[in-house]
Amino acid sequence: LLILVLAEAALETVPKELWSHPAVRRHSKRQRKPPEQLLLDRSLHHSAMRRLEDNLKRGRPDITHFALLEALGSPLNKEGLLQTHVHTNKDLAITVNPAARLPRNYNRFIGLMEQLFQQGKVPSTGETLLKLEHKKLQTLLAEAEADYILAFSREGKLKTLQDAVSTLQAKQRPAVIVGGFPHGHFSETTIQLADEVVCVDSEMLEAWTVTSRVIYEYERSLSLSGKRLCEN
Amino acid sequence: LLILVLAEAALETVPKELWSHPAVRRHSKRQRKPPEQLLLDRSLHHSAMRRLEDNLKRGRPDITHFALLEALGSPLNKEGLLQTHVHTNKDLAITVNPAARLPRNYNRFIGLMEQLFQQGKVPSTGETLLKLEHKKLQTLLAEAEADYILAFSREGKLKTLQDAVSTLQAKQRPAVIVGGFPHGHFSETTIQLADEVVCVDSEMLEAWTVTSRVIYEYERSLSLSGKRLCEN
Repeated sequence: LLILVLAEAALETVPKELWSHPAVRRHSKRQRKPPEQLLLDRSLHHSAMRRLEDNLKRGRPDITHFALLEALGSPLNKEGLLQTHVHTNKDLAITVNPAARLPRNYNRFIGLMEQLFQQGKVPSTGETLLKLEHKKLQTLLAEAEADYILAFSREGKLKTLQDAVSTLQAKQRPAVIVGGFPHGHFSETTIQLADEVVCVDSEMLEAWTVTSRVIYEYERSLSLSGKRLCEN
Repeated sequence: LLILVLAEAALETVPKELWSHPAVRRHSKRQRKPPEQLLLDRSLHHSAMRRLEDNLKRGRPDITHFALLEALGSPLNKEGLLQTHVHTNKDLAITVNPAARLPRNYNRFIGLMEQLFQQGKVPSTGETLLKLEHKKLQTLLAEAEADYILAFSREGKLKTLQDAVSTLQAKQRPAVIVGGFPHGHFSETTIQLADEVVCVDSEMLEAWTVTSRVIYEYERSLSLSGKRLCEN
């Protein structure tokens, strides 16, 4: 089993100090939703975000979207061997049902996330596919019973992904932490939770690329592909 | 060098027979663009698309978007060892400048593609990042001077990705063909161009997942990651 955590994800509703900004009000009117129910999105709120603290790390729900598509569509997930979590920059945790089929279309994904932030879970009736709770990353990892925590960061020790994943093989419930934000680094709090912090390329890799690669490399260490093809 | 072709991509402008459909007219009005300049998009034109021939394979520009982001953001591409092409279901070929930085936001990507379909290249001045031409897949592969062509299809020979890519190692200019559509299979014309057709999983994998994995596996066969980290 592999536990995947997209951490400090740039996923939040528009913060109060921006509700009266013209760009936010226009967006609110067009969507027919009050500003507090909209997701912060740099492609729409770029000018408004200038005032925000830490703004380069925020307002990029597309990163979570794409990373989740890579995770949920993987053979590892289809085998029931992947547990996927999102932990946001505001200490909110999203538990993802491995059977969830997320919208491929960005605008529909945004609609679903806005519903999740409002209701705490989606869909509102029937089996829960996504659940949102206040939860610190430390609590999330403890509840997932991770026995080893590997974080990917430009500030980590240089190591190929192959070597990094070979360390995970001996563990029962390893967790990997991938940053869900566009610029900057993990907070000190996140880094201190990790048993190991590695840097797997000389340049920044995007969250969806790291997600896809770490899952594939983990599958490879289990020879999952060969096994699945034999069952065919 | 690896040549990547996203083939029969579900990327086209709204076809003439749909221009008068109410859903298309609403979309056209909202975007302030005539219907012929809009991209066909299942998330907006679902009901209109029912009349279209082969409609399950069409109207999914998000597939091209994600697959291109995976390709262009890869270390292989940053090393100048990846050549990326899109070939659409209407025999249009998009040549992608490896230095292109595509919009991460879906709606901005759509805007860019609509501009590309109208102008034949983007941006309209300065270095061309994307170029659109009428070109058969066969011509595209011949011009790219591919010396081996590997296609991924559910109908191919069962083989792990690892084994499939190991065959490419001995070649100078291998090409991989990944389907850029949501359902169905390659046309017979496409299949006949391939030296080998492989199926790498017991279930359908999405285009962006195959793209990401084949690039990573090819990098791995070159020990690219270790080399890049040593230069650091």
